[in-house]
Amino acid sequence: MATGKLQAIPLGGLGEFGMNCMAMRWGEDIIVIDAGLMFPEAELLGVDIVVPDISYLLENRHRVRGIVLTHGHEDHIGALPWMLSELKVPVWGTEFTLAYVEDKLDEHGLLDNADLRELRSNVSIKIGAFTIHPIQVTHSLVDCVALAIHTPLGVVIHTGDFKVDPTPTDNKLFDLHTFAEYGTGGVLALFQDSTNVERKGYTPSERAVRRKFDEVFAHTRRRLFISCFSSSIHRIKLAVELAHEHGRKVAFIGRSMTNSAEIAEDLGYIEVPEGLLINPGEMKNFAPEKLCILIGGTQGEPMSALSRAAVDNHKHAKIEKGDTVVLSSRIIPGNEKTIYRMIDHLFRREAHVIYEDGSSPPVHVSGHASQEELKLIINLVKPRYFIPIHGEYRQLKLHAEMAGAMHGSVGKVMLIESGDILEFDDLGGRKIGRVNVGRVCIDSGNRTDVVEDLIIKDRRHLSEDGIVLPIIAINKLSGEVETSPEIVTRGFNVGEDGFMDGARQIVMDTLSQSSEEEKADYGVIKEKIRSDLKRYISKQSQKRPLIMPVILEI
Amino acid sequence: MATGKLQAIPLGGLGEFGMNCMAMRWGEDIIVIDAGLMFPEAELLGVDIVVPDISYLLENRHRVRGIVLTHGHEDHIGALPWMLSELKVPVWGTEFTLAYVEDKLDEHGLLDNADLRELRSNVSIKIGAFTIHPIQVTHSLVDCVALAIHTPLGVVIHTGDFKVDPTPTDNKLFDLHTFAEYGTGGVLALFQDSTNVERKGYTPSERAVRRKFDEVFAHTRRRLFISCFSSSIHRIKLAVELAHEHGRKVAFIGRSMTNSAEIAEDLGYIEVPEGLLINPGEMKNFAPEKLCILIGGTQGEPMSALSRAAVDNHKHAKIEKGDTVVLSSRIIPGNEKTIYRMIDHLFRREAHVIYEDGSSPPVHVSGHASQEELKLIINLVKPRYFIPIHGEYRQLKLHAEMAGAMHGSVGKVMLIESGDILEFDDLGGRKIGRVNVGRVCIDSGNRTDVVEDLIIKDRRHLSEDGIVLPIIAINKLSGEVETSPEIVTRGFNVGEDGFMDGARQIVMDTLSQSSEEEKADYGVIKEKIRSDLKRYISKQSQKRPLIMPVILEI
Repeated sequence: MATGKLQAIPLGGLGEFGMNCMAMRWGEDIIVIDAGLMFPEAELLGVDIVVPDISYLLENRHRVRGIVLTHGHEDHIGALPWMLSELKVPVWGTEFTLAYVEDKLDEHGLLDNADLRELRSNVSIKIGAFTIHPIQVTHSLVDCVALAIHTPLGVVIHTGDFKVDPTPTDNKLFDLHTFAEYGTGGVLALFQDSTNVERKGYTPSERAVRRKFDEVFAHTRRRLFISCFSSSIHRIKLAVELAHEHGRKVAFIGRSMTNSAEIAEDLGYIEVPEGLLINPGEMKNFAPEKLCILIGGTQGEPMSALSRAAVDNHKHAKIEKGDTVVLSSRIIPGNEKTIYRMIDHLFRREAHVIYEDGSSPPVHVSGHASQEELKLIINLVKPRYFIPIHGEYRQLKLHAEMAGAMHGSVGKVMLIESGDILEFDDLGGRKIGRVNVGRVCIDSGNRTDVVEDLIIKDRRHLSEDGIVLPIIAINKLSGEVETSPEIVTRGFNVGEDGFMDGARQIVMDTLSQSSEEEKADYGVIKEKIRSDLKRYISKQSQKRPLIMPVILEI
Repeated sequence: MATGKLQAIPLGGLGEFGMNCMAMRWGEDIIVIDAGLMFPEAELLGVDIVVPDISYLLENRHRVRGIVLTHGHEDHIGALPWMLSELKVPVWGTEFTLAYVEDKLDEHGLLDNADLRELRSNVSIKIGAFTIHPIQVTHSLVDCVALAIHTPLGVVIHTGDFKVDPTPTDNKLFDLHTFAEYGTGGVLALFQDSTNVERKGYTPSERAVRRKFDEVFAHTRRRLFISCFSSSIHRIKLAVELAHEHGRKVAFIGRSMTNSAEIAEDLGYIEVPEGLLINPGEMKNFAPEKLCILIGGTQGEPMSALSRAAVDNHKHAKIEKGDTVVLSSRIIPGNEKTIYRMIDHLFRREAHVIYEDGSSPPVHVSGHASQEELKLIINLVKPRYFIPIHGEYRQLKLHAEMAGAMHGSVGKVMLIESGDILEFDDLGGRKIGRVNVGRVCIDSGNRTDVVEDLIIKDRRHLSEDGIVLPIIAINKLSGEVETSPEIVTRGFNVGEDGFMDGARQIVMDTLSQSSEEEKADYGVIKEKIRSDLKRYISKQSQKRPLIMPVILEI
């Protein structure tokens, strides 16, 4: 057996939702598995995204050999632009994952300098002391892999995100056989996704939503809007197929949705028959019963296409009486109020809204393994050490307890959190200390800014740039703005004389260009004010202060 | 048939969650059914509660004959202090409902001048032109009634909140017979609770949680903490009974929980055997396996007993390794993140946490009727007009669609919202216009202030008193406060010289008296700062500005 030490150091995602990132080190070689973001909590108003603090990697920058991605979801790749701007290393991912990464890096002007390398399932690569064998798994996204990492001390398996879907829509099966073979050969450690550990039984196959979609297509008499996560390629594929069968044209609305569908079509995950696709601008030329619109914004994000359509403020997406809107996604915890508010607006448009209400057949299924699937993988792999990953503390703990009771399959369970250093040597594994971890808040600016967008800022910079609080008094009854908006600033140099008047005018303009429904929806109106004011301030002063609109209801 | 017009005017609760209040008018007589509050949304930071705008009632104050309450939940009685301070009218409610009302009015120093009159099921009362017949219904609270309102035009039934529980823990059955008799005699209009219209089937009986509680009591080896809504009398009764059976002493922790249990005991809803109850201070004298603690704070409210216990900051409620914590309540939409954060803290204390996870037997059941129960009542009542009440717009709409398809039982469905005037005469019913409605935001101050608490303010007053924004920079890694807090004010006269320094000192003191876990939980720390600063400012200046702490993570 080799003498030396293997360290696994989660930099995010263990004890928190999102921001998945783990370093693995043998001697002078460090590899990083995933580089995810976290969407900010309501308390962090004025921040766009949150990424892991990578000071450990920066302190060891000469040792970092590369980043390996398990799949293309934001909580696994979303921190890449930020990490690559600090760390010039190669990035490995499957074809589909890299397509998302390219799109994202391009948007930030980072693509030209990036070193992207393709990963194929069952084709091993060598990075420093590590040999990495990607294993095909199923998930809500396509082209996802688990990683069997061969180290001098033995094999470590990192599942990435997965469910065990026996009937994936692309017929690319979960590679149970390879997991079984590793189990036979002996596995040092299994790092497994904890997201759905609270759910009993099995997660239904992606194919389970087909029955509901069939029903909806059969019964819809007017326009059919379908909203799902832009990365739900299985769902988009299904909608496109059914639209074709039912003689409906397909339009994509929303930037992420359009990009994602293009990537999926380019790579052959979706086949779009000639003449099926139309531009949003062409929708008016077709009868309502001839249209299927795939639209982004399933979480009720204030500026998304569906949110704007719900308050009748989208140029192309007009939702009218008798139209059907399908929300084929889960409600991410924290978004409930916003989503139900959007659904209420859709009901007011007299649309027929179909959303997850626990009924069967389901309009959405989860992409993560439930308890029985988690146990299946543990049974197959029979690891000496089991480490729950990807979950809030209670999920890690429940996962640890579950595995801890599986005496025939699991040697020892290690419950670690982001920042813990888990070290293995030929005597075994143990927690030996901690590295600095944390959340870095990023204000990514207007997404169309391209290169300037790279000016990524954490809160240290934001507090240098100061705070701007526009305070608006809205009369709840009339929806009117009562007085001229007040603008409070702190630590922010207001610059020229006319600056404050200009800022006030911007806020007034934003308000006057908003519909009554938007003004009644504080989430929407705050986001509009924030984004318009950000553009103005950035142009006037090249500064990016934290902007937090305050609405007073009077 | 009488000539004249009957008007039903919902002032809150139709098209929004909470704030239930409806006016009913015949000529010169107006009665008001329920006077509920709404808990504010996250966007309305700095506001404690939200109540309906009652300008319609104030404009017609000489016609208002009284307020009739269906039951004692906050979304039906919580606006009473505010309404009674503006409107001196008698209030009718059942014995248990009035006990809650008394407690609430006493707290605001309004009890002495209140005219409270007891309502008994099956004993009709006359208020102006109306004769009101209270009908016993089942719900998550005890002593709840529906109202059959006899008017010159016919009988109108208002269900209040209900489910049809065939086996209520107090054996007081839902009075199906009286509903049936009204159906036989003919009913003009049925106003029915829409809360659970999205749920198929039947809501399980309150008794369904007994199996889970039995299991928990049988398996718990150390302290047992049970948290539920303080008004969940059925749940408290069950816990007290089982504690007695299993030889555990019972302590109540949390103000609402203690009050509510006292009321329930006084009125005979709970029997507490001699010697079973102990004070929180006595807990330390008993072995962990001899304790059952009923504790408030099931929604993770930052200052609640359970939230504080979860971060190890409660004087009496110490949660230790191996203790069990049961959350026997639903997650109110919008509270998910806060509640899961609290659960995570409890897991970190190595407590065994039992919460609603969809498993059976359930640890919580809903108090509202699901679809089959709603249909049952419609079948029994066979109203000429059906009007869905108590729900967000989508729920009212779905309820309207459901009833609209019941041709054998329903004449016509009217979908109205808060502010609509629904008028009936001998030709039928129709919407004839609107009155002013809206939300009034109240900062109710420190709840122990008693009389001064009556200084209830809406946002008009708040904006007169100005805004105070304490800005605190917390280092995420170390939990340290980086610089002296900044305090920004607007429209608020800072008064004496030392005022700002004093305010800064208050914030520093609050921070230094908080644990690391509290400082990491922005919800908690903001609420602590807000409440301490409010007390300081109120003492210094007699003003009550809006206080919105801003936390910068650096």
